[in-house]
Amino acid sequence: MTTVLVLNGPNLNRLGTREPEKYGSETLSDLREQLEAQAPEGITIDLRQSNSEAELVGWLHDAVDARTPVILNPAAFTHYSIALRDAAAQVSSAGIELIEVHLTNPHTREDFRQVSYISGVATGIIAGFGFGSYRLALEQIAGR
Amino acid sequence: MTTVLVLNGPNLNRLGTREPEKYGSETLSDLREQLEAQAPEGITIDLRQSNSEAELVGWLHDAVDARTPVILNPAAFTHYSIALRDAAAQVSSAGIELIEVHLTNPHTREDFRQVSYISGVATGIIAGFGFGSYRLALEQIAGR
Amino acid sequence: MTTVLVLNGPNLNRLGTREPEKYGSETLSDLREQLEAQAPEGITIDLRQSNSEAELVGWLHDAVDARTPVILNPAAFTHYSIALRDAAAQVSSAGIELIEVHLTNPHTREDFRQVSYISGVATGIIAGFGFGSYRLALEQIAGR
Amino acid sequence: MTTVLVLNGPNLNRLGTREPEKYGSETLSDLREQLEAQAPEGITIDLRQSNSEAELVGWLHDAVDARTPVILNPAAFTHYSIALRDAAAQVSSAGIELIEVHLTNPHTREDFRQVSYISGVATGIIAGFGFGSYRLALEQIAGR
Amino acid sequence: MTTVLVLNGPNLNRLGTREPEKYGSETLSDLREQLEAQAPEGITIDLRQSNSEAELVGWLHDAVDARTPVILNPAAFTHYSIALRDAAAQVSSAGIELIEVHLTNPHTREDFRQVSYISGVATGIIAGFGFGSYRLALEQIAGR
Amino acid sequence: MTTVLVLNGPNLNRLGTREPEKYGSETLSDLREQLEAQAPEGITIDLRQSNSEAELVGWLHDAVDARTPVILNPAAFTHYSIALRDAAAQVSSAGIELIEVHLTNPHTREDFRQVSYISGVATGIIAGFGFGSYRLALEQIAGR
Amino acid sequence: MTTVLVLNGPNLNRLGTREPEKYGSETLSDLREQLEAQAPEGITIDLRQSNSEAELVGWLHDAVDARTPVILNPAAFTHYSIALRDAAAQVSSAGIELIEVHLTNPHTREDFRQVSYISGVATGIIAGFGFGSYRLALEQIAGR
Amino acid sequence: MTTVLVLNGPNLNRLGTREPEKYGSETLSDLREQLEAQAPEGITIDLRQSNSEAELVGWLHDAVDARTPVILNPAAFTHYSIALRDAAAQVSSAGIELIEVHLTNPHTREDFRQVSYISGVATGIIAGFGFGSYRLALEQIAGR
Amino acid sequence: MTTVLVLNGPNLNRLGTREPEKYGSETLSDLREQLEAQAPEGITIDLRQSNSEAELVGWLHDAVDARTPVILNPAAFTHYSIALRDAAAQVSSAGIELIEVHLTNPHTREDFRQVSYISGVATGIIAGFGFGSYRLALEQIAGR
Amino acid sequence: MTTVLVLNGPNLNRLGTREPEKYGSETLSDLREQLEAQAPEGITIDLRQSNSEAELVGWLHDAVDARTPVILNPAAFTHYSIALRDAAAQVSSAGIELIEVHLTNPHTREDFRQVSYISGVATGIIAGFGFGSYRLALEQIAGR
Amino acid sequence: MTTVLVLNGPNLNRLGTREPEKYGSETLSDLREQLEAQAPEGITIDLRQSNSEAELVGWLHDAVDARTPVILNPAAFTHYSIALRDAAAQVSSAGIELIEVHLTNPHTREDFRQVSYISGVATGIIAGFGFGSYRLALEQIAGR
Amino acid sequence: MTTVLVLNGPNLNRLGTREPEKYGSETLSDLREQLEAQAPEGITIDLRQSNSEAELVGWLHDAVDARTPVILNPAAFTHYSIALRDAAAQVSSAGIELIEVHLTNPHTREDFRQVSYISGVATGIIAGFGFGSYRLALEQIAGR
Repeated sequence: MTTVLVLNGPNLNRLGTREPEKYGSETLSDLREQLEAQAPEGITIDLRQSNSEAELVGWLHDAVDARTPVILNPAAFTHYSIALRDAAAQVSSAGIELIEVHLTNPHTREDFRQVSYISGVATGIIAGFGFGSYRLALEQIAGR
Repeated sequence: MTTVLVLNGPNLNRLGTREPEKYGSETLSDLREQLEAQAPEGITIDLRQSNSEAELVGWLHDAVDARTPVILNPAAFTHYSIALRDAAAQVSSAGIELIEVHLTNPHTREDFRQVSYISGVATGIIAGFGFGSYRLALEQIAGR
Repeated sequence: MTTVLVLNGPNLNRLGTREPEKYGSETLSDLREQLEAQAPEGITIDLRQSNSEAELVGWLHDAVDARTPVILNPAAFTHYSIALRDAAAQVSSAGIELIEVHLTNPHTREDFRQVSYISGVATGIIAGFGFGSYRLALEQIAGR
Repeated sequence: MTTVLVLNGPNLNRLGTREPEKYGSETLSDLREQLEAQAPEGITIDLRQSNSEAELVGWLHDAVDARTPVILNPAAFTHYSIALRDAAAQVSSAGIELIEVHLTNPHTREDFRQVSYISGVATGIIAGFGFGSYRLALEQIAGR
Repeated sequence: MTTVLVLNGPNLNRLGTREPEKYGSETLSDLREQLEAQAPEGITIDLRQSNSEAELVGWLHDAVDARTPVILNPAAFTHYSIALRDAAAQVSSAGIELIEVHLTNPHTREDFRQVSYISGVATGIIAGFGFGSYRLALEQIAGR
Repeated sequence: MTTVLVLNGPNLNRLGTREPEKYGSETLSDLREQLEAQAPEGITIDLRQSNSEAELVGWLHDAVDARTPVILNPAAFTHYSIALRDAAAQVSSAGIELIEVHLTNPHTREDFRQVSYISGVATGIIAGFGFGSYRLALEQIAGR
Repeated sequence: MTTVLVLNGPNLNRLGTREPEKYGSETLSDLREQLEAQAPEGITIDLRQSNSEAELVGWLHDAVDARTPVILNPAAFTHYSIALRDAAAQVSSAGIELIEVHLTNPHTREDFRQVSYISGVATGIIAGFGFGSYRLALEQIAGR
Repeated sequence: MTTVLVLNGPNLNRLGTREPEKYGSETLSDLREQLEAQAPEGITIDLRQSNSEAELVGWLHDAVDARTPVILNPAAFTHYSIALRDAAAQVSSAGIELIEVHLTNPHTREDFRQVSYISGVATGIIAGFGFGSYRLALEQIAGR
Repeated sequence: MTTVLVLNGPNLNRLGTREPEKYGSETLSDLREQLEAQAPEGITIDLRQSNSEAELVGWLHDAVDARTPVILNPAAFTHYSIALRDAAAQVSSAGIELIEVHLTNPHTREDFRQVSYISGVATGIIAGFGFGSYRLALEQIAGR
Repeated sequence: MTTVLVLNGPNLNRLGTREPEKYGSETLSDLREQLEAQAPEGITIDLRQSNSEAELVGWLHDAVDARTPVILNPAAFTHYSIALRDAAAQVSSAGIELIEVHLTNPHTREDFRQVSYISGVATGIIAGFGFGSYRLALEQIAGR
Repeated sequence: MTTVLVLNGPNLNRLGTREPEKYGSETLSDLREQLEAQAPEGITIDLRQSNSEAELVGWLHDAVDARTPVILNPAAFTHYSIALRDAAAQVSSAGIELIEVHLTNPHTREDFRQVSYISGVATGIIAGFGFGSYRLALEQIAGR
Repeated sequence: MTTVLVLNGPNLNRLGTREPEKYGSETLSDLREQLEAQAPEGITIDLRQSNSEAELVGWLHDAVDARTPVILNPAAFTHYSIALRDAAAQVSSAGIELIEVHLTNPHTREDFRQVSYISGVATGIIAGFGFGSYRLALEQIAGR
């Protein structure tokens, strides 16, 4: 039995409520259900969200110890949390997949969102497909 | 009965202790009392402080749900917390007043304090009047 | 009897005409009336406007000599007039209040409007509240 | 009867005198005559020059009120006068043509002349043809 | 019958030969076969490669006319070809999917590869999974 | 008999099709007809378009040899093609007119469109008048 | 009896596990033991670690109140946590030693690690000696 | 009989009043007297001050026509008035001495005062000697 | 029998015609003859020129396959063609000599010519000796 | 018998004389005595100072040959002497300790002192403790 | 009897030989003679030149000890020698005049000559008058 | 009899010792021998090395006087010694060849080595061929 950790950064608990015209009206619960429906047998989805950098860092440490592949939407932390980068780097440098995902395409937004401190230590990046970004990441992990 | 949320960022719990020659010797309790004294009937002051970015983000989410106007002194987070910006943006884009206040005038301080990630999503900005910055913000909210 | 000088920079004579959807349809005369109505007894409002940097500089010199507090909306001069800064610095360094006000929040506009040569020598800054920015400034001066 | 306002910025009163090998020996009077000769019936040329930013700003305000199309050679103001930009923006945003012209091609001159605060609010730009820049601008306005 | 256009930029004809330790030993023919094997019925794979910017631009024009979704690996053109961007923008602004893919994660390479002129006009971005980047893009297109 | 070469860069073959609300619905054929109608006797219009940098470079070489004045809309190449600049420089440094034209005003678009590698070697620049930019350029050439 | 507070920032709880070839295989417990062994009589070592910025800020506040000298390894927070800087500044501006330490030499790592928001308010800096950096800091504090 | 034009920019009419600890308590009248006392027979001092850029520009034009050497303290205009630079350039390029002077050494002040638009077209520069800067400039002109 | 490929980028077909005072009046044919005369027995010169980036990229691919040393004058492509860099990198990373040559010294020209995308992947660089740059490169290759 | 080379850069011969309020009144002789007193048996202190970059470079070469550990206070050379960096790099890359020390904390001084060309090739860095910086460095070397 | 130290930096021993059209044909000996002729009784001129940074630093140290005013033409060292700056700062911070002089106006030369590390610690600056720059500096020193 | 001066900058006396895997194990003596062997009759090699900027400057002055062509490897001075640049400029502007050589290709090293203050005044540049860089430079000088 393999677990895939799906981590979501700050403000993503507001999905479905926050600017639905940009992010859609579906919530993280909807996402969990969709990923569970999609996951092949033997793969469990462990979806979590936190506004706390420290909590996200801790969850990444757990992923290293349990050798759990990670789908990470760092949200605003993408652009300045070097602590999160250092934690994410431990995952990928241990040979565990860590895929950075974004609901929207950050290149169509403000200048300060063009910089990612996570991309440099991610296995790969998927952005711009809404929940599809997560589904493709799961596809990639499951397909290996 | 309307509540005004008065949020204070990191290190502001040290007010009155920290560099009193720059920030004065009054504390956040003094501020709460002054604002309560000033507030017209029907307006309650809910003053909070946190050193935690996550906690401040959560309080802003609550403000959106309760449609509470916010007076926000982001302190050091002004200059790098994009998570706080994203939370503040939910307040103002929902048509709720979010006023950024500063005790001192940041333009007379270090270069890295010239950048504000909050101003771009604030309804307005008041800086440089000590506790007066909060009082004017309350005046503005109450006066509407 | 105290006078408060309310100085307005270039193009502000067009208020009410210029992009009313952004700046409102009220004019500087309306502003004068509102401030006069608000002013406590013993405070006279002396509202002026000029497109000329030299004239504004001269008015600030007068304020130093007469020790008149100043509410200054430098408009476009905010971003490049070092002459105006040098004049404003004489006001504030003489211990006379000089409050920089803006109708709109400059942080939501073009990049070149993010720089203020006035802020570094202002007593405080109020931006984003339309005529309210002036009213709060007057409140602050009158309340001292 | 339509008037076309032909505004000329600082130092252009020296045309014919100043570095004639670069700017030619013809003067603004020569330019006025040429434009008048070229103008089709029903179009009057109102050519003015000022070294004063405030005066130019005022003339642009007049153009808005009279709905007069403008040919503007901002000269040195091109590169720093945000006040002039704000005035010019009122012309073009009112749907009145405002064409920025230059005698020489600024891209072959100093680095600080590569920046134009006017271009972003001009209807169009014509540079490098000496008096021809004005003639083409008039052609464009008259031809509509 | 739907066609998916899979466009590959300069030097990608060398896949399998060029630095196989970085890009693997599989060729574009292998990629075509894998995508054809993966494609659901009714979807045809049209994989092309060119070192010529003009040819790639032309193929994107064709995609607009035929309303063909595009998987685009712009290779070196990612970082400077504004002509390719302008062509890609025609695809996505017509409501046709255009997914930018990369074999490797550009954020782990030279500084000049951190800039993408394509991302700003792409529907989404997938990078870092080798041929998997293409497979996920096809999955995304086919799944809609 | 004089020929005027009217060269058009990448994606301009899409005129009339591409974002007609920005570029209008007229095509290059329409432009050719308008210029031919406008041209005084003795002047032939040779309008060409290419998405290929090399082809445009070659046409500019031909213009040098035949001493043909050039109207050049470099489109996306404006912003990065130094090869095109070097070819254009041969035209203008041979004393042959080379006028850079743009349909729209690039200063109202993305930051990367503020840089022109062509302007520094052009005789003059006309931007922002739609097909009028070409017509004025022809006027200028014919009028000499 | 004097206490020396030894504070460790995010991801340092992973010492001994994370990239042991770069950071060694010793853990924070080993470090505590070594510092205790080294400390002269009368000096107690209080070593703590947190991934939470807020917790570290709070500990620094405690140090001010108790007038405890601090050895601070801010880890990733070095490069962006202005909140931590503001807290650290309270320690050093109160005349209490605050020594910034790093296990490795940040100048041999990524560009974004060349910036320290802590150094400007630290009493001194020691970097590059592994656990030796802490031992030297303790030596310095104890020796005074 | 030769005249030397001594031009003074914005805020210099406040000399003696403004920050006397930095600029001294002497006024422009004192300066005129000192220069007149120093001037050898046959040299007249024509000292003027203006806060108006346009007026200063006009005076420089007069200097060109009368071939009068100029001592210019551009004050705040030093750092942004390209109009003044263009006027000053006409003086020096006509072979007439134009010496830029400053009371204080601008290199010990704010960053934005490190840039001079005048220096590039001045015959020479003298800064940092209070009224001595003017006296040395006069010495240089008279000595030729 | 060894071949040395001598590749020449855009506009170099104009050698002898273009600015002969800067580049001399000799043509590429003259260069071929000189190199052939200089080449020791057993070395054949294969000199080619193209204005097309794609064609140059293809020739470099051929050089990898045939293990042919390359003398490359990238001309304008030096400064922006990352596609050419990627192709050149295949040559040098395969252990085949690729020498970047320039007729003139780019450091004496425009700022944008100070950047070379080719130098970072070239075996060596020779610039400033006219045709001598090629002759020295051939000397270096032949002498090994 | 081991020697530790203690090298001091330009102006450090003025210690005790130069700005004693910043650097203290002790001299290099005092420092030598203190280090000799501190050094464990078998360690000789060889303290030298030079204002000459060449002499310092030579001493570092000697250190490589004699395999002598180095304590280096590069003073002003820290910020621009790449020659010194290249010499220092020979020490550390030979596996000999080279510790960069500073009396004061450079991060509290001018901007140009924030850059160190030495840190990138130093074993470690100690700054801000006055003579203590040297003592700790000796402690570190002696303790190994 | 007072001595004035006239120090000249690298390459100034070539005066009269090096580019005489720019620097004149007079030599340092001529300069010494002129200054001696000009000096009032009781003032001795001690003119020296060195290409060695260390030697110049040493001479400035001597000036501090002997309290000798200094006229310093730092030549190329102006733009990078922080060691010279640190030495010069000792002179001026001891209340001894140190005047930076330049033969030519550096603002009319290369970009890298726009930066002076000396100006920030000089009493004053005189540039652009050939030997006159020195004469005015002597005038200023003698006149006090 | 012609002499060629072969000047070598700081740390090059360590050739053969310093990082032999990067710079080879041959010494400057080996280089002298090879150049002497290569030099045609009538050409003498005068190879020198110095770590002293002043000494190198002096040698370049000698080259001007004796009209000796120079092969210059400025080593670390390449990147900051404007004094050396000014001396080198005297050589080349006197019409004497001055060829800048480098053993390795600086474009494959640190960012600060991408800037050369020498290239702008060198006749030509040869880099990346080890001792071959010198041999080619000699070839070029001897061949003229």
